[in-house]
Amino acid sequence: MLPRVLTTVTEIRAALLPFRRAGKRIGLVPTMGALHEGHLSLVRASKAECDLTVVWIYVNPSQFGPHEDLANYPRTLQADLEKLATCDTEFVMAPSEAEVYRPGHATWVEVSAIAEPLEGRCRPGHFRGVATIVLKLLNMIQPDIAYFGQKDYQQAAVIRRMVADLDVPVEIRVCPIIREPDGLAMSSRNVYLSADARQRATVLWHSLELARQLVAGGERDAAAIAQEMTQRILAVGATIDYVALVDPDSLAAVTQITGPTLAVLAVKIDGTRLIDNTILKRS
Amino acid sequence: MLPRVLTTVTEIRAALLPFRRAGKRIGLVPTMGALHEGHLSLVRASKAECDLTVVWIYVNPSQFGPHEDLANYPRTLQADLEKLATCDTEFVMAPSEAEVYRPGHATWVEVSAIAEPLEGRCRPGHFRGVATIVLKLLNMIQPDIAYFGQKDYQQAAVIRRMVADLDVPVEIRVCPIIREPDGLAMSSRNVYLSADARQRATVLWHSLELARQLVAGGERDAAAIAQEMTQRILAVGATIDYVALVDPDSLAAVTQITGPTLAVLAVKIDGTRLIDNTILKRS
Repeated sequence: MLPRVLTTVTEIRAALLPFRRAGKRIGLVPTMGALHEGHLSLVRASKAECDLTVVWIYVNPSQFGPHEDLANYPRTLQADLEKLATCDTEFVMAPSEAEVYRPGHATWVEVSAIAEPLEGRCRPGHFRGVATIVLKLLNMIQPDIAYFGQKDYQQAAVIRRMVADLDVPVEIRVCPIIREPDGLAMSSRNVYLSADARQRATVLWHSLELARQLVAGGERDAAAIAQEMTQRILAVGATIDYVALVDPDSLAAVTQITGPTLAVLAVKIDGTRLIDNTILKRS
Repeated sequence: MLPRVLTTVTEIRAALLPFRRAGKRIGLVPTMGALHEGHLSLVRASKAECDLTVVWIYVNPSQFGPHEDLANYPRTLQADLEKLATCDTEFVMAPSEAEVYRPGHATWVEVSAIAEPLEGRCRPGHFRGVATIVLKLLNMIQPDIAYFGQKDYQQAAVIRRMVADLDVPVEIRVCPIIREPDGLAMSSRNVYLSADARQRATVLWHSLELARQLVAGGERDAAAIAQEMTQRILAVGATIDYVALVDPDSLAAVTQITGPTLAVLAVKIDGTRLIDNTILKRS
C-alpha cells in the first residue's frame, strides 16, 4: 500500500499525535527523494525497531551552493512512493518550499569544528543548510530515532554533534553504505553519469579498496596511501576535491595509521561530484 | 512546599515523562535566577494555564560579553526556591555548567535581522548565546508553553523568530513588565544600584512616560521624541547605549509615529546597564 503523504507541519503532527500519545516509537528517515536501495535500507532499519516510520522527502535548497545541482537534482516522487510501498512505510512528509522556509526566515544552525574540513571546505554553507533543515524536520516530526547513511559520513557526524550540543531528544542511527554489485556507493546523483562515466566511477570504491590493501600489507604512512589513491583516481580522468585519511571521530587528518582511521574522498567524474568513505582501521 | 530541584537532563526528563504521557500541559519559565516579582508573574501565568511548571535557573555564560557582569551576576538559589514555594512551583531545573555545555560544544543558533539592532549592536554575540541556550532548554524540557518577560522585548522577539523558523513545538508567551512603585522595571541587576543610583534609575521610566505624553500631545516626529528622552536621561548623569523608536514587529527605526511604535532604551547608571521599553502606539 502506498504510504500516506502529508505536506504540512500541522497535518503530520496531527497524524502522529495519537501514536505519540500511545507511546509508539516513531522512526524518521530524512531524504531528498530520488530514493535508491541505500534509502530503503534506512527505512527497513526503522521498520525493524520502530512502530511507525516517516520518510521525509524534500530537496532542501539551503544546502546547495549557488553553482551546484539544485535545479537538476532528480525529483521522482511517484516512483519514490512506489518503492516505499514495498517497505510498508506508513507516512511520507513531502512539504512544499513555502511550508519549510516561511517569509522572513532568519535563523541558522552553525556547527564549527567537525563541519569545517572536507565537505565543509569544498561546499561553503552546505552544513549550515543541512544542520538547519535537519533540526527543523526533527522538530516538525519529533521522532524517537532518526536514520542516516554512512555514505554521508561527515553529515552524520555533524548531525550527531548538533543533536548532542542542542539536547535534541532523538537517537541518531548511522547505517552502512549500500553499494552496487561493482562497488559504486548508491547515490541519487549516480543518474547523472553517462555509461562511460558510470564505469569509471567505480574508481572511488577501487581506491578505497586499494587503501585497505595497503594497510593490510603493513603501510602506515597516510600520505603514501593518499598518494596511491590519488594516482588511481587521476588515471581514469577524474578530478579530486579531496582524498583524506582522518580520525573517524574528529575528522582531523592522521599522518600515521596507528589508531582508528577513516578514508574519505570526493571526486568529480565528468562534472558529477561523488563521495565515498570506508573505515580503514577500527581501533 | 519547596519545588523539587533537578540538576541533570536525564533527571528532569524522567520526572516529566509521566506527566507528558498523561497529556498534562507543561509550562516553562526560563530564568537566570535572582528572582523578583517579574519572574514570579511568569510563574503565576504558567500556573494559571498549565498543569505543572518548571522554572529553569542557570546563569548562561554564553550570553555575556567578555567585559560584562557574568562573575558578579547575583546567584541566590536558596532565596529563589523560597520565592518559588510561595507560587507552588513544582520543579526547578538548576543544571551545572558542565551539564549544559559539554566538552566539544560546537553548535550555535544564529538569528539575523531582528537580532541585529539595539541589544544586538551593543552586545555582540549576546543573542547567539540567548538563542542557543533557549533552544537547548526547550529541547531538554519540551514544554507546551514557555514564558518570557516583555522587559527583554528584543529577546522575546528573537526567541519567537527562532521558534517559528526552526519549527520548535512550543507556544511562546510574553508577559507584561512588572515595575517597582516608582516605575523602575524589575531586574535582577537592580541590586547593583547604590541608593543614589537607584533613585536616578527611575529616569528610564520617566523618559518613557515623557515619550507617551509627547505622543498623546500630538508629537509625531520620532527624532524629536528621542531627543527629549535623551535630554531627560543625560540630565541625571546617566549614559546612553541607545534610545530608539522602532516598529514593534521588525524593530526597524520609525521616523514618524503613524503606526505601531515601541520606545526602547538601554542606559547605564554608574556602570549598571538597565533596559526598558513601552509600546507608544498600538496600531
